Amino acid sequence: MSLLVVGSVALDSVETPFGKRDEVLGGSATYFSASASLLTRVSVVGVVGEDFPAPQLDFLRHRGVDLSGLEKVSGKTFRWKGRYGFDLNAAETLDTQLNVFEHFSPRLGPAARAAERIFLGNIDPGLQMQVLEQAERPRLVCADTMNYWISSRRPQLLELLPRVDVLMVNDSEVRQLAGESNVVKAAQAAQRMGARSVVVKRGEYGALLVTGGHSFYSPAYPLADVRDPTGAGDSFAGGFLGLLDRLDRADAAALRQATVMGSTVASFTVERFSLDRLRDLSLAEVRQRFDAFRQLVHFDELPDHVG
Amino acid sequence: MSLLVVGSVALDSVETPFGKRDEVLGGSATYFSASASLLTRVSVVGVVGEDFPAPQLDFLRHRGVDLSGLEKVSGKTFRWKGRYGFDLNAAETLDTQLNVFEHFSPRLGPAARAAERIFLGNIDPGLQMQVLEQAERPRLVCADTMNYWISSRRPQLLELLPRVDVLMVNDSEVRQLAGESNVVKAAQAAQRMGARSVVVKRGEYGALLVTGGHSFYSPAYPLADVRDPTGAGDSFAGGFLGLLDRLDRADAAALRQATVMGSTVASFTVERFSLDRLRDLSLAEVRQRFDAFRQLVHFDELPDHVG
Repeated sequence: MSLLVVGSVALDSVETPFGKRDEVLGGSATYFSASASLLTRVSVVGVVGEDFPAPQLDFLRHRGVDLSGLEKVSGKTFRWKGRYGFDLNAAETLDTQLNVFEHFSPRLGPAARAAERIFLGNIDPGLQMQVLEQAERPRLVCADTMNYWISSRRPQLLELLPRVDVLMVNDSEVRQLAGESNVVKAAQAAQRMGARSVVVKRGEYGALLVTGGHSFYSPAYPLADVRDPTGAGDSFAGGFLGLLDRLDRADAAALRQATVMGSTVASFTVERFSLDRLRDLSLAEVRQRFDAFRQLVHFDELPDHVG
Repeated sequence: MSLLVVGSVALDSVETPFGKRDEVLGGSATYFSASASLLTRVSVVGVVGEDFPAPQLDFLRHRGVDLSGLEKVSGKTFRWKGRYGFDLNAAETLDTQLNVFEHFSPRLGPAARAAERIFLGNIDPGLQMQVLEQAERPRLVCADTMNYWISSRRPQLLELLPRVDVLMVNDSEVRQLAGESNVVKAAQAAQRMGARSVVVKRGEYGALLVTGGHSFYSPAYPLADVRDPTGAGDSFAGGFLGLLDRLDRADAAALRQATVMGSTVASFTVERFSLDRLRDLSLAEVRQRFDAFRQLVHFDELPDHVG
């Protein structure tokens, strides 16, 4: 079991109808590793600036996350500022300062190169490919991307897709990638572009897994308190790949369980701002909510007299 | 087993990215009875004008729908004109002509008064109450409503809710009713207003059932071809109540099955314009897709070593 994430470590300033936080811990690699480390051993490759408050990552170290691939370089840490309205499904980006992330060039150390499973966070598809070129023999590659790369780096993304086992995107991204409004057709089109499986993240509406010719749907957990949806997608990815690495399997049944695990971990993340809920989350709590998902979607077969 | 629907019978003009139809069969009572009649015996109470093309309802008669409560009065039939963009979740209403529906006053005949289960389609809550006052001993009442009534007839709606077993609304309606953006909290608030259970319809994202202190989520069936979402909500209601009437039960397990049956029938409706898909739909096809829903949401328990 070994899992690598390559992505951002950031300082976020976030406003939602339920509060406001300035310069708190964020970034895809951060949410991913905090989530996945509940289930398996994770290595992080990323970059921060000289101003980064390193002790904020101590809780990851305590969970066994290998941060030796997190470079510190001169300059400032990546910053993102965003706002959510009552429709918590969509963030309005107020400001993005790439800072040291602008010239990020992922370098994998020996342990990272040997990782069996890799999550390529939302970075330039050219950099995602660089990661794969350094990887020795990954058994499973999962990649995120976004509207900006789909339009501005389309050739690079199309070159990457045949090397991707699980493409993990949201509704609008898969629609844009495929040029197709129907999400099922769009996911199938992404498969024809090379991705073996596609997970479409749909925020508060759950996630759709399309693998082979089959579909699986996991709802989002119906929460009475959602404070900050930032990081839900990367937490989903962390739960998803963390479980696959723990199970050491990636057959259809495992992918289904991983999709629910992704929804489970993400449901905790959004209960608090930043990584506050993930900091002290236990695997026992996670397992309990995973089981609650079974109850959430359970229904009996129809009796024979109907039909 | 006996099921009554009170609602509109209409002529719809609809445009979606996949086509356009003028003055085709529509209306809540029409979609509801076409759906529910696959499962049980349905009576319709409604009104049409002199211009209504009665033979278009022959397929309902052939399915045993009792149309004796569908009055024909002088004047024109209710007409609705709407358009959907690629986001098929929201219709833009271009024109509404209430016509004979404006002075609709539901009158229940002997069979309708004796109905065991009642669906109150989306009409003035004052009229919905008139229906209940004529009903003799309904064992289950399900009501739809909409933003217009929630704001303009709020006192009448609040008077109705304690007599409603299942309130069936969409996301924005339950949010508006409760003055609460979180859907789970909003549904719980509707329960405190008197509805025993709440079904929140979420279009292509499925449906959430809140009953007692429990939640159940049914996804929408992931369809590669959706042509016209008109009538999905009323088809959902028809499948839902049709199954409850057929099962002659309304415990939590039956409500879960009914929610899936609602999603199942609605998934057929949206595959074609108007009631075209419902006309020749068979219960065998419905049962097959119901079973496919089980596969769609099935996942295995976690092995013991995780947790």
